[in-house]
Amino acid sequence: MGTRIVIIGANAAGAKAAAKARRIDPGAEITVVDRGEFISYGACGIPYYVSDTVQEVAELMSTPVGVMRDAAFFRKVKGVEVLTGMEAVAIGRKEKTVSLREDSTGAIRTLSYDRLVLATGSSPVTLPLKGKELSGIFTVKTIEDAELLKEKASSSTRACIVGGGLIGLETAEALLERGLTVTLVEMRNQLLPGVLDPEMARIVEKHLAEKGVAIHVGCTVEGFDGNGRVENVATTAGNVPAKLVVLAPGVKPNVTLAREAGLEIGATGAIAVNERMQTSDPAIYACGDCCETTHLVTGQKVHIPLGSTANKQGRVAGINVAGGDAAFAGVIGTAIVKVCDMNAGKTGLTETEARSAGFMVETVLAPAPDRAHFFPGAKPIALKLVAEKESGRILGLQAVGLGAVDKRIDAAVAAITFGATAAQLAQLDLAYAPPYAAAMDNLIVAADILRNKLEGHARGIAPAEVKRKLDEGDDFILLDVRSPGEHSEVRIAGAKLVPLGALREKMEMLPKDKEIVTFCKISLRGYEAQKIMEAAGFGDVKFMDGGILTWPYDLERG
Amino acid sequence: MGTRIVIIGANAAGAKAAAKARRIDPGAEITVVDRGEFISYGACGIPYYVSDTVQEVAELMSTPVGVMRDAAFFRKVKGVEVLTGMEAVAIGRKEKTVSLREDSTGAIRTLSYDRLVLATGSSPVTLPLKGKELSGIFTVKTIEDAELLKEKASSSTRACIVGGGLIGLETAEALLERGLTVTLVEMRNQLLPGVLDPEMARIVEKHLAEKGVAIHVGCTVEGFDGNGRVENVATTAGNVPAKLVVLAPGVKPNVTLAREAGLEIGATGAIAVNERMQTSDPAIYACGDCCETTHLVTGQKVHIPLGSTANKQGRVAGINVAGGDAAFAGVIGTAIVKVCDMNAGKTGLTETEARSAGFMVETVLAPAPDRAHFFPGAKPIALKLVAEKESGRILGLQAVGLGAVDKRIDAAVAAITFGATAAQLAQLDLAYAPPYAAAMDNLIVAADILRNKLEGHARGIAPAEVKRKLDEGDDFILLDVRSPGEHSEVRIAGAKLVPLGALREKMEMLPKDKEIVTFCKISLRGYEAQKIMEAAGFGDVKFMDGGILTWPYDLERG
Repeated sequence: MGTRIVIIGANAAGAKAAAKARRIDPGAEITVVDRGEFISYGACGIPYYVSDTVQEVAELMSTPVGVMRDAAFFRKVKGVEVLTGMEAVAIGRKEKTVSLREDSTGAIRTLSYDRLVLATGSSPVTLPLKGKELSGIFTVKTIEDAELLKEKASSSTRACIVGGGLIGLETAEALLERGLTVTLVEMRNQLLPGVLDPEMARIVEKHLAEKGVAIHVGCTVEGFDGNGRVENVATTAGNVPAKLVVLAPGVKPNVTLAREAGLEIGATGAIAVNERMQTSDPAIYACGDCCETTHLVTGQKVHIPLGSTANKQGRVAGINVAGGDAAFAGVIGTAIVKVCDMNAGKTGLTETEARSAGFMVETVLAPAPDRAHFFPGAKPIALKLVAEKESGRILGLQAVGLGAVDKRIDAAVAAITFGATAAQLAQLDLAYAPPYAAAMDNLIVAADILRNKLEGHARGIAPAEVKRKLDEGDDFILLDVRSPGEHSEVRIAGAKLVPLGALREKMEMLPKDKEIVTFCKISLRGYEAQKIMEAAGFGDVKFMDGGILTWPYDLERG
Repeated sequence: MGTRIVIIGANAAGAKAAAKARRIDPGAEITVVDRGEFISYGACGIPYYVSDTVQEVAELMSTPVGVMRDAAFFRKVKGVEVLTGMEAVAIGRKEKTVSLREDSTGAIRTLSYDRLVLATGSSPVTLPLKGKELSGIFTVKTIEDAELLKEKASSSTRACIVGGGLIGLETAEALLERGLTVTLVEMRNQLLPGVLDPEMARIVEKHLAEKGVAIHVGCTVEGFDGNGRVENVATTAGNVPAKLVVLAPGVKPNVTLAREAGLEIGATGAIAVNERMQTSDPAIYACGDCCETTHLVTGQKVHIPLGSTANKQGRVAGINVAGGDAAFAGVIGTAIVKVCDMNAGKTGLTETEARSAGFMVETVLAPAPDRAHFFPGAKPIALKLVAEKESGRILGLQAVGLGAVDKRIDAAVAAITFGATAAQLAQLDLAYAPPYAAAMDNLIVAADILRNKLEGHARGIAPAEVKRKLDEGDDFILLDVRSPGEHSEVRIAGAKLVPLGALREKMEMLPKDKEIVTFCKISLRGYEAQKIMEAAGFGDVKFMDGGILTWPYDLERG
């Protein structure tokens, strides 16, 4: 008889572990148990099913060539038994058994294992809010959720989304696409906390607001009102009338089974595993959303549930339970989201994360077109690079904009994974032709500015600091070095205009001993101006990071 | 008096060197000399100017914010003197002077330098062909070339392009867009030699042929006929009537000035420089298309002229001539081209290049959609990864298809630069959400198959080898494991159909001792089939790399 491998959970991680175990050990008896009816589906596609971008739920459950990944598929193709509608309720570690409860009958049966894989996934965090049991309040995690939500959405006009993270934003887009009026409430004082620093998040917030989403950040939900059905969301910013509410407050790992079996739970709240995806019981492995992993930049344990990570971990667990030897190194916190034609993502650490992890950092904001500026269809993107000050090592990249942010993130993923410095990043031989990038890719430009800062040539100042100076009436000159044409279109109140082309002549009129902050559209002319003025003997000149394009505050127009 | 820095050549490398030198040394006297009238333009944009994709030549010569980069701009903004219409004709190394000939008058003047930068660029290779002086025969290198070519194109109907490299293909697309009938002639027996391996190049060739381009590979041009104006291109494949001919046989570095000054010319034919971009004369630097650089995978010197590299080298030369200290590490041979909605590119070494550099290699062909297969707009791309067999180190990636190949290349650029192995590539935390990638990105899938091959789990066979077996009547079974529906649409003649889902039942009917080659659409089911049959005791099963999607030969349809 072959090794008995039991896998609990038939989505990304569990399905992958099963398939991989089968390839490694043709003789194993492999059984996958799942409490749902739908198995191995693309859970990350659910917001797109809600928006009807993906029309048929079957598309989420098929292989790329259209074969349905159901129990029959797993049996025939993979030689793997799948039991659906069965919840694993207890693990007998001593006797190596799992107790399963059949959903339909409540009957209990027992499966014996030689090796067990926990791929129990994650669930939406439960908010202890008054009225949360009212109908019309949804989470978006399973296909069943999505079906209910779609039905409700087609008879509703106003929706309120609680949570401005990845799923909250994807759901906001989905409901906008369905024609609903959407209000989004986020407890922290920015969208996408943990993904973007505040000034980058503001770009997303402005864009969503332009698309008609009412956004309340720094706003806490106090409860829901309604008579059986939700009609109002009570928040610290007032009442939000809505007959449809989506709770997207983030997810927590499903660890009850593991905890009750006495397996070690990490400080993150997820199941602790080693590099081989092995739990504190050597016969039991865990993979996917239910377990924690290592952040390769900080070395700390983290719980960052993602379908991409689940697949990689499932592969490793599958190899190991089948008698092979594989390891999963960890993640670097990459995340990306599309929301109303805007792309936003990051990899590595944000400035906020880096500082709270104890790093001394240098940063740069670099907005620019995503390909040669003369190539039709070029769209703006803004990058924020974060580096360790002493070593120049890149700690993280954030990228936001209408253009191709994903490829800059993916290139940075590889660079950060291998410990690249700003100097090394700036010399990467990235693919160049006008339809794809400028001769100096956005990443190269950002890395070059970062080098200039790290080497002390460029002196930047963050937009938030400039705003503080303006608000507090500091004695400094904010110098706009753009052209008169650009200035007449849009400008920062209180800035003085001296176009870069006239600066060499006109700077004599400026005081050499006063603090001067230069800026332009994207910060390159601002930096140029800093160098010109320093060379002329000005004592305290800085340029404002990112220029007017990433100025997150109000602008004067027209 | 400041350091006198003279720069010869005012395009990418020269202009960058000048700007950077100014920022490092505010007191330097910087003069840039160029023989043309147009300076600092986006030369890589010229094919798009030919196609009218870029409408105004000014767009190629402007900064991203629309400021014209002309001599006045350099003077006012950069504090750099630019002399146009001046050809540098001799360097007096002993006395540190450059002799300039004014184009309009023929007058000679002399400039003294403390440090000199050669940014003399490259020129199209001259083909020693009969009739090449006929009118209607063009190269595409300068804006002046493009203006003449556009004028001619508007009165022509048939064009012949000589050369199937990057510029040849971009020009083919440009002339197609202008409504011309295009024939393309390439001496070697594939398009994009040096960029793609033959089976990858075939994907591009098929696509261009579908768009109506007549392609002759392995075809040499013997001469041009016509009475003052070209009317016919005589080739080894017969006559190609054309009143417009574009020569795109590649470029050679402009080294006459350097050679006559006694500077060392490398084996590549380009100016030899060290990491600081310094030539054999310590007072003279070179950067951009005129000089050679180091290939970071092979360690060999190469001449790969690209605007992206020119900018990076210009920065380094600029820093060093201004008294700073910077180094340029090298390139890894990245290239990319858009041709009629198809994207094709590579980084690192092709299989051909890797083998001729002496590497023992393992490769994988992995076609798949460029994002979650259920996400609307997903487009196919094919990746080919090349790794060193012993170490698993990734040597190169090729990517071809209608979808996002550039981001896979850029991620691979960083990975290859830092010496990533297949195992490391497979665990990169690449950005995942359905609009951007599948949960397992194309790169991850390719790297996983490569690992399976390197570890001996997966046994692949190249399409070319399968074709040879079929043609020579080898005794083997070619097993199509796709569905009957897929098989009825398109198939390889001589293959036997046993759908994967039926394989476990039906494989008993196949001989266990015969060589069996499995395949599907993309090779994943083919690999699955190999594992199933091996487990059942079949002795010699391989899967065909890339499946039917990258089969470069004829297919039966309908």
